[in-house]
Parts: sequence; C-alpha cells; structure tokens
Amino acid sequence: MVCSIADVMGAVGDRWGMLVMRDLLLGITRYDDLRRSTGITNATLSDRLKMLEQTGLIERRLYQSRPERHDYVPTSKGQDLGLLMVAMVQIGDKWRAREGGGPPLRFLHAPTGHDLRLVPVDTATGALLDASSIVAEPGAGADDTMAWRLARGESERAARRAACGEDAA
Amino acid sequence: MVCSIADVMGAVGDRWGMLVMRDLLLGITRYDDLRRSTGITNATLSDRLKMLEQTGLIERRLYQSRPERHDYVPTSKGQDLGLLMVAMVQIGDKWRAREGGGPPLRFLHAPTGHDLRLVPVDTATGALLDASSIVAEPGAGADDTMAWRLARGESERAARRAACGEDAA
Repeated sequence: MVCSIADVMGAVGDRWGMLVMRDLLLGITRYDDLRRSTGITNATLSDRLKMLEQTGLIERRLYQSRPERHDYVPTSKGQDLGLLMVAMVQIGDKWRAREGGGPPLRFLHAPTGHDLRLVPVDTATGALLDASSIVAEPGAGADDTMAWRLARGESERAARRAACGEDAA
Repeated sequence: MVCSIADVMGAVGDRWGMLVMRDLLLGITRYDDLRRSTGITNATLSDRLKMLEQTGLIERRLYQSRPERHDYVPTSKGQDLGLLMVAMVQIGDKWRAREGGGPPLRFLHAPTGHDLRLVPVDTATGALLDASSIVAEPGAGADDTMAWRLARGESERAARRAACGEDAA
C-alpha cells in the first residue's frame, strides 16, 4: 500500500512494538528492563525485538563478550518515532484528563522547564496553524488508490455539508 | 499500564485499525469503500470496526432504513487521532524521501496552500522548540513503574555519556 501511515504502522507492528520503542527511546537498552517495563512475555518480547530489527528501527549491540550479551538501541530511523511518541502522549493525556487523570509522562523543554505541544506550523512562514484549516490532497508520490481515497472522502464530506445546509434551511 | 502511549495504541489496535481510522478521518464512511481502500478481508474489517467502536473512536450510524444500512464516522475522541495521522505521514514521508519517493498524501494549510510540519511549541511562550532540547520526566499521573522506567533510561543515558567522554579523552 502506497501510504506513509501504512509504512510507519508496518514498521512498528502493534501496541507491543510501540511500547518497546517507547522504552528504547526513553533510554532503556537491556532485555530484562524491557521485560520489567512492559510486562510482555519472553516469546512476545523476543518476537517484537526481531521484528523491530528487521524493519530497521532498532539495532542489536554486543555490550559484553564473556558471556556474550546484547542490548538494543534505536537507529536513526527509530529515533524518528520520537515525534510519534510525543503525539500519542498529547492525545492520550487529553483522553485521560477527561476522566480526571493527570499525565503519566511529561515532555518539557529542558532549558526552561516549560511544557510543550505539537502544533502544525506553516513551513513557508513559520506561522502556527489551526488544525481546522488543514486539508489533505494527493502528493507527488500518490498512486491511483490514494487519489481515489481522497476524492471519495471529499465527495462524502461535501454531501454531508449539503445535507446539513438543507437541514438548517 | 499507566501510560498514554499504551492507551492510544490500545484504542487503535494495530496497523489495520490505524488504516481504517485514516480512511474515516479522510471522510470515507461506507463499509465497501473501506474494503476497497484498505484491501482488508471482510472478517478483519468487521472485527476492527467493532473494536474501534468499543474503544470509542468511531460511531456506527443508520443512514438508510429499508433495507437497514449503517456507516461509520469518527467520534470526537476518534478525531483526536488526526494529529497522529499527520505525525505518521511526516515520519513515513521522511523515510520514503531517503529512498527517493515522493509523499503519497500531502497535508496543507487550506487558505494559503502552504505545506505544514508538526513542531514542538513552548506552551508558555509560543516559541518553536528544537527536538533535541526536549526531555521526559514523570508527570502528575505517573505510577511507580513510569518513575522507574524514566530513572532507568536516564541512568543508562548518563552512563553512555560518561563512556563516550572517556572514549574521546
């Protein structure tokens, strides 16, 4: 499927894969610490580590030779998922706040200690944008299915706007 | 697990769940269109739609009574995943560009047609922040495991910095 969302989800795999990436991105490297942090079974953890290595997100390193011991670190490709982690925390914290819960994990700007948010920014002007002003269109790498998907979604949205207009009239 | 990343991945489920959310967020609502867009089997698509309804991300609506027909729309909670979709596109496009591929899906600012990027912004001052200046710490809702996870990651990072310093000396 020609879709960057499919690529990223394909590389991460599932919830366990994402939780292993979370831990590695937070600095954890050892198998036993990953087990303790996630509570995953040995079979599942070994499987996800192999998968994340195959999809190029992590690297297995020898850190001791006698006996041989390995640990795990994110590759440069894996470090790109830092953005995904911050986005998930932002969304999950919002859901949690609705139930009265506080954020388990806080990302902050080290020099000032201030909280941060991910905001869409205009790449040409640097202006902060409102999410409601964002639209999607086929990019240079779109295939026919992506073009169809976007056209279909847009025509359904247009139909709904028309129906709502009629209701209001 | 007390973790907003785990919450979000738990609500989305897996790659198929995310691809269904992508389509619904782009405006697609009908079962047959979801089938065509994703290429998922009937069994898997039905299962993921039920799961996404149970986790509160989508709503099943009656749009025709004779015969009864339903379609699917994101709830307000589901719409929060728009941020996740933009983050995944940003990451996946970067990976794709390394192989010389163009972006399949382009998000842009409707009034100007400019491209956009997600950027961490200081919530107090509105300043755009550099990703390298961001750190993580336990938040108000952290449990002991989250506090341990962050302390463990930080102590490993400190050990690596010290080791690198020795190498350089």
